[in-house]
Amino acid sequence: MISIDTSTAPAAVLSPELADTDFIKEMNRQARALDSYGTYDGWPVERVLAPYVVTKEQRRQIPVIGDPDDVLISRVKAFHNAIAALIEKECGLMAVPVINLTHEGFGRALITVGKLVVLDRTLRDVHRFGFETFSKMKDEADKHLSVALEIIGKYPEVAGL
Amino acid sequence: MISIDTSTAPAAVLSPELADTDFIKEMNRQARALDSYGTYDGWPVERVLAPYVVTKEQRRQIPVIGDPDDVLISRVKAFHNAIAALIEKECGLMAVPVINLTHEGFGRALITVGKLVVLDRTLRDVHRFGFETFSKMKDEADKHLSVALEIIGKYPEVAGL
Repeated sequence: MISIDTSTAPAAVLSPELADTDFIKEMNRQARALDSYGTYDGWPVERVLAPYVVTKEQRRQIPVIGDPDDVLISRVKAFHNAIAALIEKECGLMAVPVINLTHEGFGRALITVGKLVVLDRTLRDVHRFGFETFSKMKDEADKHLSVALEIIGKYPEVAGL
Repeated sequence: MISIDTSTAPAAVLSPELADTDFIKEMNRQARALDSYGTYDGWPVERVLAPYVVTKEQRRQIPVIGDPDDVLISRVKAFHNAIAALIEKECGLMAVPVINLTHEGFGRALITVGKLVVLDRTLRDVHRFGFETFSKMKDEADKHLSVALEIIGKYPEVAGL
């Protein structure tokens, strides 16, 4: 486990407007879906999603040594699952996320729709996976979502295969 | 480790014609590429590729319990790497294999070329990964290769992205 200096880690703030967006709702759902032991039961959204916010200062404190642990990997999955779910919602076609981590926190995240690759990212330093604020997390997801929808719009036949 | 009753496991035969095919040459290269400790140095092709031949009788003797070991996973990778290498050779575009195994030997194998998914297989019982003969292994690879090249031919623009 990684201990973080709490004096430099104020609780992340989730505004009601942000909490009401499709993305944050989906993230909440996906994060809870991967919580096999029901640890999150009864927790508010802010608390469930708090580990996704990692400030620059916290980032520096996280060592990039060894393979990232399962909890961290499940966060990377939840984030991409949420993007896939939103793609599916927008285009009505099944979006399949694939997270492939090799050693030491390197890997690749893919989302496919039919025979089309709609997202393809290289993952680096997965140990430090996180976003500066909830708002930046949503911005990044929105960016991936719009790129994905653009390519689906351009090649609907391949996406429908 | 799994022990196999050798009385039911005659050595697999690799004919000179088969050994001379692009696929077997590529398999040999890929299998050796994943052999980090140089165990295969000086071995003939037949010996390097012998574990890929699993007869029906042997298959029955392999239990499908727990996660498959690293050696087995490296074989699944080598097989798909070889297919990817042949796709690349034929179409001149980079083909990227992704093997994603979850638990208990289930998973997915993908090969992407540009933004096009040219191979997408569900993997089951990876513990028993293997082919009845070298010739059947080549047939299966050829099948995947021709399907991949067909889809690339149909959507060259997406494959070139």
